[in-house]
Amino acid sequence: MSKLDQRTTKLLKGKNFAFVATINRDGVPQLTPTWIDTDGTNVLVNTALGRTKERNVARDKRVTVGLLDHSNPYDRVTIEGKVVKEIRGKEAEDHIDKLSYKYTGNKKYAGRTPSEKRVIFVIEPVKVY
Amino acid sequence: MSKLDQRTTKLLKGKNFAFVATINRDGVPQLTPTWIDTDGTNVLVNTALGRTKERNVARDKRVTVGLLDHSNPYDRVTIEGKVVKEIRGKEAEDHIDKLSYKYTGNKKYAGRTPSEKRVIFVIEPVKVY
Repeated sequence: MSKLDQRTTKLLKGKNFAFVATINRDGVPQLTPTWIDTDGTNVLVNTALGRTKERNVARDKRVTVGLLDHSNPYDRVTIEGKVVKEIRGKEAEDHIDKLSYKYTGNKKYAGRTPSEKRVIFVIEPVKVY
Repeated sequence: MSKLDQRTTKLLKGKNFAFVATINRDGVPQLTPTWIDTDGTNVLVNTALGRTKERNVARDKRVTVGLLDHSNPYDRVTIEGKVVKEIRGKEAEDHIDKLSYKYTGNKKYAGRTPSEKRVIFVIEPVKVY
């Protein structure tokens, strides 16, 4: 059973930005604002191959995701998790379009560069605060 | 000269929540939502003695702060910094009341417990994204 309760799922499905924390090679915490999603069991983060976050996860699968309801910042959650799977190819490309639609209303992600390859981090929640 | 430009200063002075990332002893990134402030040069985070964040900083002074404008989440900043000073006592207690006023309108911080001792992390920005 997922550790994501109904409230957390609602926050993840909402149009809220998340911050994703990973650890740089030199030990500095790396933090990036990101669109966020869930498959009902795991937290989904869509990033591009080669980004700092992606390289950090290749080294250490432990990530922490924090987000809050933009309209009520006291409704918030922090999820410590582990990247248990990475999805690439068409599924990841379609997923960034889906996120684009959720956050911007555009059915095609406008920020894509020709060489960009998307990847979905499937993050299994370990602790939810 | 501070690395905080006008836009970043405005985000820090605004009624926006920040996420502060530190590193737990076991290497898991620790992330907490927090009220945020600036003295014009440094980022100020007010926490309580004994909290995870505070214990993590005692071990490693490198912290990363991310925040976004709640009304325009594409206006956001990530600040990698170093805790160069910790302020305790009356100044820290007054500062949490000041933050309470900024975020809630209450001149006295309502979340205080009898044994709680506040501390201000003075975070010198190292890199701003």
